[in-house]
Amino acid sequence: MSAFTDFDGLRACLSAAPGTDAAAQTGAEARNVQLTKPPGALGRLEDLAIWYAGWRGTDRPQITQPQIIVFAGNHGVTAQGVSAFPAEVTAQMVLNFQAGGAAINQLASLAGARLDVHALDLDQPTQDFTQAPAMEEADCVTALQAGWDAVEPASDLLVVGEMGIGNTTCAAAIACALLGGQASDWVGRGTGVDDAGLANKARVVAEGVARHAGGDGLHTLARLGGRELAGMAGAIARARMERIPVILDGFICSAAAACLLKAHPAALDHTVAGHLSAEGAHARLLSEIGKEPLLSLGMRLGEASGAALAIQILKGAVACQAGMATFAEAGVADG
Amino acid sequence: MSAFTDFDGLRACLSAAPGTDAAAQTGAEARNVQLTKPPGALGRLEDLAIWYAGWRGTDRPQITQPQIIVFAGNHGVTAQGVSAFPAEVTAQMVLNFQAGGAAINQLASLAGARLDVHALDLDQPTQDFTQAPAMEEADCVTALQAGWDAVEPASDLLVVGEMGIGNTTCAAAIACALLGGQASDWVGRGTGVDDAGLANKARVVAEGVARHAGGDGLHTLARLGGRELAGMAGAIARARMERIPVILDGFICSAAAACLLKAHPAALDHTVAGHLSAEGAHARLLSEIGKEPLLSLGMRLGEASGAALAIQILKGAVACQAGMATFAEAGVADG
Repeated sequence: MSAFTDFDGLRACLSAAPGTDAAAQTGAEARNVQLTKPPGALGRLEDLAIWYAGWRGTDRPQITQPQIIVFAGNHGVTAQGVSAFPAEVTAQMVLNFQAGGAAINQLASLAGARLDVHALDLDQPTQDFTQAPAMEEADCVTALQAGWDAVEPASDLLVVGEMGIGNTTCAAAIACALLGGQASDWVGRGTGVDDAGLANKARVVAEGVARHAGGDGLHTLARLGGRELAGMAGAIARARMERIPVILDGFICSAAAACLLKAHPAALDHTVAGHLSAEGAHARLLSEIGKEPLLSLGMRLGEASGAALAIQILKGAVACQAGMATFAEAGVADG
Repeated sequence: MSAFTDFDGLRACLSAAPGTDAAAQTGAEARNVQLTKPPGALGRLEDLAIWYAGWRGTDRPQITQPQIIVFAGNHGVTAQGVSAFPAEVTAQMVLNFQAGGAAINQLASLAGARLDVHALDLDQPTQDFTQAPAMEEADCVTALQAGWDAVEPASDLLVVGEMGIGNTTCAAAIACALLGGQASDWVGRGTGVDDAGLANKARVVAEGVARHAGGDGLHTLARLGGRELAGMAGAIARARMERIPVILDGFICSAAAACLLKAHPAALDHTVAGHLSAEGAHARLLSEIGKEPLLSLGMRLGEASGAALAIQILKGAVACQAGMATFAEAGVADG
């Protein structure tokens, strides 16, 4: 039995989710200033470690069981010619994930992370959102539940990502609908469309946003999104409930996260942005959801690849927090 | 017997060093475009992997034996009150490295890297460079040799870093002497000096640069640097000879690298910048030596910590290059 059966139920879950552990966070802050380094010398690693400690409820946390989940979905809007790749590639890439041949397989292995792949009804693409809502609420709830159920509660870190030919168009439409601006502000080259393709994407996004204006984050997720975006949103929500910190991946993941944020203002408190994608509008989207990326390496692959790489940054932060000696322990003068 | 016994000998080594393997690099480029991702979608990871492949002489390289070397040295210029910490902390931190309690111990372990610590005559600080050359050529050569000899030739990746109370002042003086500008352009807060301390550092740097103007990179390294900077330079030079790629650490490491670059224009071809330090002048210094940092996390600890974290980025790049399936292997349509 799922924790929710409709959008109202998911909103109730988000409202009931526990917050950070203030005592653990305070303890981590107190420990941080005693560690053998000049104050603040580990920069963002210190903030990350303290934030992570708060969510995990201990001042010396460890990351030993990271989970990466890649959700895949197909999109009716590909009929509008929005992608440089045919829709069949979604299913082909799922097979590649399962065979271990994709970038995310290599990066998950490097991070010591469990990798789960959930292909969500690939043989039933969502509706073309220029013609109809991509999903009805019930379809979207099913995908949200799939995401929710995909999270291993014993994980101590979650990364979510996606595969879905056409989904940068969905993400751009969601961002435009939720955050305003012009369609052309939000579209990018995705897997590699040319200038004409980019103009076509802007037309498609503008049509979709005009047709499906209004509604909150979850309605927008249904009408303009796709199953893999809903899967990511459901997983992020579940992690919020379980106090599992989440590293967000790129543009599409951030759009899914924005839908949750519009559903509840604290829905992303347990998340950090793994990286700044080369997809042009990602910087603005991250700014709108209040996240500063950990990495900026010009990646634009999806598959959770940027966030998987960022696991190492968070692991480094937590390892320093947990493993370093204090000035007193090491007999080092503290300035 | 060392490979060189004076500065001229080191210059000769740098001139004789082998370059990248063009065939391996071309092979890696050809493989990269066949991998199951849109062209360029891994961003900088693709460039890194191809660059690494060229230096290692194989189109599918691996990183299995990274080495991190931390050099420590003491500085007579601390008599000028340039640091927030007493000079004794250098030796105390070396003990902390040896006991496993420092940040670099945690980050080296996470990266699966061997960590070597070389304390270079800590009981004999260099001269105060406002009064005399920090080192004579023979002293500097001894430290360069220590760095050269510290490199394990079987390593497949090298990270160098430092510990030395007072050495941001040395690095600033080197940068100012080699690259021009005002002393105040190059000094920063180091381990945490206040505004008065910062002004004092600028005075000290200006005095040192005025006293020791002229000379090439190696002379500047001797006159304004320190043993740990020379150790890093010697190790970077050895890695160049052995075709071991190097990840540079922060401001002080970059200053040591700049000395090598001024000694030979190809001396840093095998290096990447691991991160952008919070030490204010690091961005300019990296720009001057033509390096774009992999990470920017506000770190300013030294100890090779930023570069050690960046090992993970390079490992990710190489893992994707070596481990991903091609479109043909995976049966994925390539757009």
